[in-house]
This record gives sequence, C-alpha cells and structure tokens, in this order.
Amino acid sequence: MPNYKNKILFTPGPLSTSETVKLAMLSDLGSRDEEFQEIILDIEKRLLLLANLSPTDYAAILMQGSGTFGLESVIGTAIPKDGSLLVIENGAYGKRLAQIALTLKIPVQIINFREQDNFCLKIIKEKIENSDATHIAMVHCETSTGMFNPVLEVSKISKNNKKVFICDAMSSFGAVPIDFTYIDYLISSANKCIEGVPGFSFVIANKKDLINIEGQARSLSLDLYNQWRSLVTNKQFRFTPPTHAFLAFRQALIELFLEGGIEGRAQR
Amino acid sequence: MPNYKNKILFTPGPLSTSETVKLAMLSDLGSRDEEFQEIILDIEKRLLLLANLSPTDYAAILMQGSGTFGLESVIGTAIPKDGSLLVIENGAYGKRLAQIALTLKIPVQIINFREQDNFCLKIIKEKIENSDATHIAMVHCETSTGMFNPVLEVSKISKNNKKVFICDAMSSFGAVPIDFTYIDYLISSANKCIEGVPGFSFVIANKKDLINIEGQARSLSLDLYNQWRSLVTNKQFRFTPPTHAFLAFRQALIELFLEGGIEGRAQR
Repeated sequence: MPNYKNKILFTPGPLSTSETVKLAMLSDLGSRDEEFQEIILDIEKRLLLLANLSPTDYAAILMQGSGTFGLESVIGTAIPKDGSLLVIENGAYGKRLAQIALTLKIPVQIINFREQDNFCLKIIKEKIENSDATHIAMVHCETSTGMFNPVLEVSKISKNNKKVFICDAMSSFGAVPIDFTYIDYLISSANKCIEGVPGFSFVIANKKDLINIEGQARSLSLDLYNQWRSLVTNKQFRFTPPTHAFLAFRQALIELFLEGGIEGRAQR
Repeated sequence: MPNYKNKILFTPGPLSTSETVKLAMLSDLGSRDEEFQEIILDIEKRLLLLANLSPTDYAAILMQGSGTFGLESVIGTAIPKDGSLLVIENGAYGKRLAQIALTLKIPVQIINFREQDNFCLKIIKEKIENSDATHIAMVHCETSTGMFNPVLEVSKISKNNKKVFICDAMSSFGAVPIDFTYIDYLISSANKCIEGVPGFSFVIANKKDLINIEGQARSLSLDLYNQWRSLVTNKQFRFTPPTHAFLAFRQALIELFLEGGIEGRAQR
C-alpha cells in the first residue's frame, strides 16, 4: 500500500487550487459553444489518459454536484430493479455508500471492519462467494482515516464471482495509480487530488457495463446513462453545467500533466 | 402579465456575468471556514429579502447542481410516499416537472395547454377541484416560449383546495416581483436572472411545509429537508459545496441590490 506523508491531500472538503486554475474561471462560455464542447472532450480524454485506459473500452462521465452526487448516480443507475448491493466498509465514507443505497430502497448488505483495521481478504472472499448481491462497492482511500483499501484484490474477487465492482476513489484518483482491470465504475471528484474547484464529480466506467444500464436510473438529474449518451450523441449536457468549474478543472488537469502526472504528483 | 423586451434574460443556459462576479471566484474558502459560513448566511438573507419574505416564516435552501437538481429535490422530498403530483404545463419546462415525478415513480397527472396558449383558469380550477393530487406544480416563465403563467391565480386555487403549490421560477425569480402568499416551494437557479455563475439552484420554502417533510426524500444527495437542517443546525453543507460559485453568487446579489433590486433590473 502506498504511504503518503503529505496527508493534506486526504483532508475532506475543498483543497487549495493554484492561481492559474482560479484564473481559468474568468471567462463565460455558453454550454453550447463549440469552444466549451472542445474543452469537455479534452477533459474526458485527459481523465482516461490519467487512468491509463482506452476510450474504446472506457468512458469518463462528468456529473454535477459533489462526490456524493457522483456516487449516487452510479448506485442509482447501475443497479437494476432486482439488483442489490454489498458494501465493504471500514469508515464514514464506506457507510455513506450503504446509506445512498438504503435511501434509494436498494437492498444492501454490509461487511464491516472497524476504522483503522485492515480488511481481511479471507472474510471478504467468503462473504462475496456466499452473497447474492449483484454489485459490490468499496472506498479506495477511506478519507476519515487516510487508510488505503485493497481495491485490486477485492475487485478481482468480485469479478471472479460475476459481481459488478464500484470503487469510490474520491481521495485517491489522480494521486496514486489504480489498476482498472476488474473495476467497472470508479467515482472521483473535481476538487480532490486533481485540485480543481468543487462543483462536479466524474465517473470512469467500462462501456460493456454502461450500454446495459439504460432506463434503470431512479432519478432524472442523476441518470448516469443519459448523462453519458447526451454528451456522446450531441456533445450537450442535459442540464446547464457548471461551466466555470469545468474551465478550472481543465487547467488543473493541464497542470497535473505538466507535473508529471500521477507519478509526479505522488512524489510531491 | 409583464412583457419584457429584454428577451436575453430568458434564454436557456448560462448568461454572461459581470467581471466583478467572476473576480469574486479568485479565492479558495474552506466550506467549514467561518468566513464562508457568513457568506452563506448572507446569501440566504438576501434571497429572502429579494422575495420580500420574513426569515421567521420562510427559508432559502441552497442545492448543488442545475435548476433541475433543485426541482427534483423539492418534488422528491416534499411529496410523501402516498402523495401525487398534478402538473399544469404549456411547454418544455412544464414537461420536465412531470418527467421528474415519473422517474421518481410518483403518480403524476398533467393538464396540458399548447405552447404559446394562455392557461385557461376555468379549466385549471375544475381539474384541481376534481383531482386527488396532493401537490400542484407549474412553471412561472416557460423559458421555451418566454410566456409568463398566472402563478398567483393558480397557487390561490391550489391553496383553496388544500394542495401544496410548487413553482418553477427558473427564468423569473430576481427579474419580476412574485407574490408568495399561496406558494409553498419556489425553485430558481444561480445563473439565471440573478446572474451568478452556474453550479447550484435554490429553493424558497414555507417553513410550515418544510418541518413536515423529514424522512420523505427519495435521494440522499437531493434531500431538501436534510440540506435545510444541516445548514440551520451546524452551518455546514452535508457535502462539499461549490464554494467558488457561492462567492460569485454573493457578489451577483450585491450587484442586483445596487441596481435597485427587482424593480431596478426589470427596468434594464
């Protein structure tokens, strides 16, 4: 597990942004302007590049609202009517995943470890093998403790048991390399490790999963499938997007790449 | 009905903002900083002042995401499990109100007039009197046509029939005076007539209604009740808020008041 001395990266709430990231907001672009659409395409491209994924197989989907909005868009859209969720949790943000499903009336089981405890992979493997849940959700870096959870191992167990794996990477994506081999949905936020301003979250998803979730959303605003399709088919957000936050994020991504990407930032 | 020559106010999507509104975003405030909390209190105070309402009876609640997110937070939280919605519509944004309810599996009836048609109050009165819907929703200014609908009359009919009245004032609040006497929930957006940057919406609600909707939300992110209580009880947003968009909005409100408030802007 990586051990980051620079703990400030893992605090909740908005972090400081660079002057140039903030200055990028001094422009009003219409959400239907070609210039804005190019910027959105560039953001999506850079997010997949950062994840080391091909746009043929994966999509990056931008969703308004904080990280919780992004998590809810995945849980509320990816899990079908007769599906259910197994949450593996060891802290406040794992609990939130379960709370989202509960509020949406999705059947949810929880494997709980105490905060500060390492996950026991043997227990997790047994529980997943004996669970009828269709989806597994887990936090990568539990922000409440700074602890990194074994995403690769648990996502592999999930895949071996034909479960869809959802990863909350709020405080890790952009700061540490993540192996997507067995991850179906990964959610992170503009204002965490990539150091944009708060205002939206993003989902990196396997297209093989995405194409099957049409019509499943439990919300109009947080419909992940339609959000994806609308941007792919007509380069438009369904609803007025936070244009200035996107301008800041594009600049933040440029600066992250100039810093040497994830490897470079991890060294800081 | 007011007839605004300056049609640009009623275009969909983000409008231009002043230089000073954009410059207000050049600062990173933590969402738990006292300075930020003061700004949020000031925004809530100014919104009620603009609506000519007393903070004793009404609350202004800030909700992340575009106007649609705000509408969904009201429809998804205010209508109880056994409630239903009657939508009076004459255009795209009226249809969206119905679509939100449909997606949330809330029973919905629609009274439809053709775009460009004036509402017929006689028909509306009859339909409301004979409807078992608990809630009525209507758009004030139907952005797709620029047409103003008779909110005062319809909200009064609703109240006389003991229905809760929800008003979508996306393209009107801040530009024209609105009589709240019979309105229970009014929703508008940061980037419309108040001319802030896009990133959040707001709800002005009668506290008599609000105190009765605890536990009704169909979403964690869009729980209007908890959003309200969290800000009232500990001055905190439940989830990382778009701090920069709020800084811009506060500046936009200051400029609106300097311009002479709603009366002043209506003259422009």
